[in-house]
Amino acid sequence: MSIQQKQLTIGLFGFSVVGTGLYKVLQQSPSLNANIKKVCIKHPEKKREAPESLFTIDPELLLQDNDINVVVELIDDADAAYHIVTRALSSGKAVVSANKKMIAEHLPELLALQKKYDVPFLYESACCASIPVIRNLEEYYDNDLLQSFSGIVNGSTNYILTRVFQDKLDFDEALVLAQAEGFAESNPALDVEGIDALNKLSILLTHAYGIVANPNEIVHCGIQNLQTHDAIFAKEKGYEIKLVAQAKKLEDGNVAAFVLPQFVDNTNQLYNVRNEYNGVIIESGLADKQFFYGKGAGSFPTASAVLSDLSALRYDYKYEYKKLNNKIAGELTNDFFLRVYVSFEGLFQVPHEKFERIEEWSSSEKRCHVIGIIQFSKLKNSDWWKKKGTSLIVLPDAFAEHIAIKEETEESYLVLV
Amino acid sequence: MSIQQKQLTIGLFGFSVVGTGLYKVLQQSPSLNANIKKVCIKHPEKKREAPESLFTIDPELLLQDNDINVVVELIDDADAAYHIVTRALSSGKAVVSANKKMIAEHLPELLALQKKYDVPFLYESACCASIPVIRNLEEYYDNDLLQSFSGIVNGSTNYILTRVFQDKLDFDEALVLAQAEGFAESNPALDVEGIDALNKLSILLTHAYGIVANPNEIVHCGIQNLQTHDAIFAKEKGYEIKLVAQAKKLEDGNVAAFVLPQFVDNTNQLYNVRNEYNGVIIESGLADKQFFYGKGAGSFPTASAVLSDLSALRYDYKYEYKKLNNKIAGELTNDFFLRVYVSFEGLFQVPHEKFERIEEWSSSEKRCHVIGIIQFSKLKNSDWWKKKGTSLIVLPDAFAEHIAIKEETEESYLVLV
Repeated sequence: MSIQQKQLTIGLFGFSVVGTGLYKVLQQSPSLNANIKKVCIKHPEKKREAPESLFTIDPELLLQDNDINVVVELIDDADAAYHIVTRALSSGKAVVSANKKMIAEHLPELLALQKKYDVPFLYESACCASIPVIRNLEEYYDNDLLQSFSGIVNGSTNYILTRVFQDKLDFDEALVLAQAEGFAESNPALDVEGIDALNKLSILLTHAYGIVANPNEIVHCGIQNLQTHDAIFAKEKGYEIKLVAQAKKLEDGNVAAFVLPQFVDNTNQLYNVRNEYNGVIIESGLADKQFFYGKGAGSFPTASAVLSDLSALRYDYKYEYKKLNNKIAGELTNDFFLRVYVSFEGLFQVPHEKFERIEEWSSSEKRCHVIGIIQFSKLKNSDWWKKKGTSLIVLPDAFAEHIAIKEETEESYLVLV
Repeated sequence: MSIQQKQLTIGLFGFSVVGTGLYKVLQQSPSLNANIKKVCIKHPEKKREAPESLFTIDPELLLQDNDINVVVELIDDADAAYHIVTRALSSGKAVVSANKKMIAEHLPELLALQKKYDVPFLYESACCASIPVIRNLEEYYDNDLLQSFSGIVNGSTNYILTRVFQDKLDFDEALVLAQAEGFAESNPALDVEGIDALNKLSILLTHAYGIVANPNEIVHCGIQNLQTHDAIFAKEKGYEIKLVAQAKKLEDGNVAAFVLPQFVDNTNQLYNVRNEYNGVIIESGLADKQFFYGKGAGSFPTASAVLSDLSALRYDYKYEYKKLNNKIAGELTNDFFLRVYVSFEGLFQVPHEKFERIEEWSSSEKRCHVIGIIQFSKLKNSDWWKKKGTSLIVLPDAFAEHIAIKEETEESYLVLV
């Protein structure tokens, strides 16, 4: 039981708030056995809270330094990050990264590199910042029983939705506020259109089900089209709207996955996830639902997850991608039904033909909505529901119907003509 | 990245609901590479849902079988369990156990055995059933930054408290109901007096801070003395009462720990933990608070955690007791102050001398309460506060005061005479 702790000599890329925070914490954490030898930055002219000798603008000084056994990559630019990470892994250095975009877009290559060079590549901070969701999916829920996970994985959109529901702001006002508070980028498309959540979902799919999917293959939409009308409907029903990344093993063993706005009622743990917080529900066969909650954005929570990854590297921890290597779930599928709410501008825009069954229809002067069952594969292959003026929101227990509808006879359908 | 998966041949002790559940799940989980070779039971005459040839009443048939490389111990009797576990570990067999009482009472011996024979001993199900709290404390929060954890770790008492606060039952009525629903033993002392929570706390202390403490050294009290009066006070203030197991690293690096009833307000994640559910808040320096929630009792959640332990054994996972072997926190201390509410029977029973400072005092015909600051070490060395008719409940932010009081001058104390 005596443990060999590795000494970590770190080459750090990026010295923004996360990098600075990490530097400070490492100085105060002698037990971590880790020190930063060199930091590669882009703008040497900026004043920084560390000795000048620590910095360089030459990445090769880090990548070619044999003393450096760990590269921590904390830069914004996904392409540059990919270059650094591949170079580092190929040089046999362990890598810690927080760059979900880069990881999600290059998973196959990054998996191959880890295999080829047999070096650890950890990225817990890339999903839900400080919440250890990747590690738990990889290590603890590593068996046949994982039924589903669903989570609020993007803090910015959740902050906006909180302002709409708590402070009764319009979506546009809430976005402006989120930007002012630093919870949304000046170009908020990545967050607001659900791309960031999508990237996280595709990383989680790998650790939950061993599925490596190109993010673009996964049905997704953000909160960009939501309207006050939708929020009013939600309130009337006792729902809130959340942007949820979800995956669920279906009866045939294949996996349904998407990022879509959802109505969430107060029996759902995600209902109380507010502001920049993240929360993930993991459902397994025996344990029922388990809920993980914490800060999903911000420099400190991110630095915290990076630190836990570094800490794990001392003990030579690496992801073993157990589900990928011992495949037990099926593949990503679009062959299922979903119960959704769709709202439209104008009275005569209801696309009946998109629904398998319509359960509710309501119209006001400017806007109308429909609740019904859709075939998911039809969503996948169209974009009418993503057009400005149209919003699609998944209802609670949306999956329950997909079995019922198959068993129902034609006559029991209520179709509006 | 190819992973060697071990074949697990299991000797199972006990075939109650958890054992039966495990047997069924393993039959349906071929990917687990695990099968039960023999089950040792006490009452062979009982009818069971498995072939008769699977059962024996002779423990040696399992312990001396060299094919069996894993012993799963799921029996009630803590002494018999300890005997089985020590025999199994000494024979080089990995062991999975759910017996918190046995583990908490024999931690030093069990640590020594694991060290001596270098075999894994996993017991995730012993704390909070399906919530992976031991693994996360051991693996993810394995650095200097773990500030505190506090949790509802006993489902039975939480069920009783829920009935009191939700259904306005008396404590006695709620206990009867809990027994009827199967959430409390017919002899409920272990749960109600906080012993079960205490056992779990002492296990968690080892994985969180590397502290191995005899449960009897830790200040604890259950919900046995709570009265309707206390519940009414809580409601007036917007609190609920929860039985909380808590540990906190103090400024000097030493660790405060106790199991006590606490008033919890709705800003605390534990507020919404109801019925038989468990929840644990883990606070770390950078990540702020994280919350883990799930079913903390019952055969399926327990079987689920046992299954995750088995799953981990396939990859030779073992607890490394990192905090114990690379000590970073200090020792268990009673040298701190705590803000508490104490209620008494009768008007003239206020023990002023027990308080460092009294902040509030209220009396009614039959009962009165005092809110004030106490020296924790005085609680440790006395039992006036555990006597029938007296209830002590920790207030929210109880620790904040322990600094303030040290700095305050004599004059600023408000003392009732």
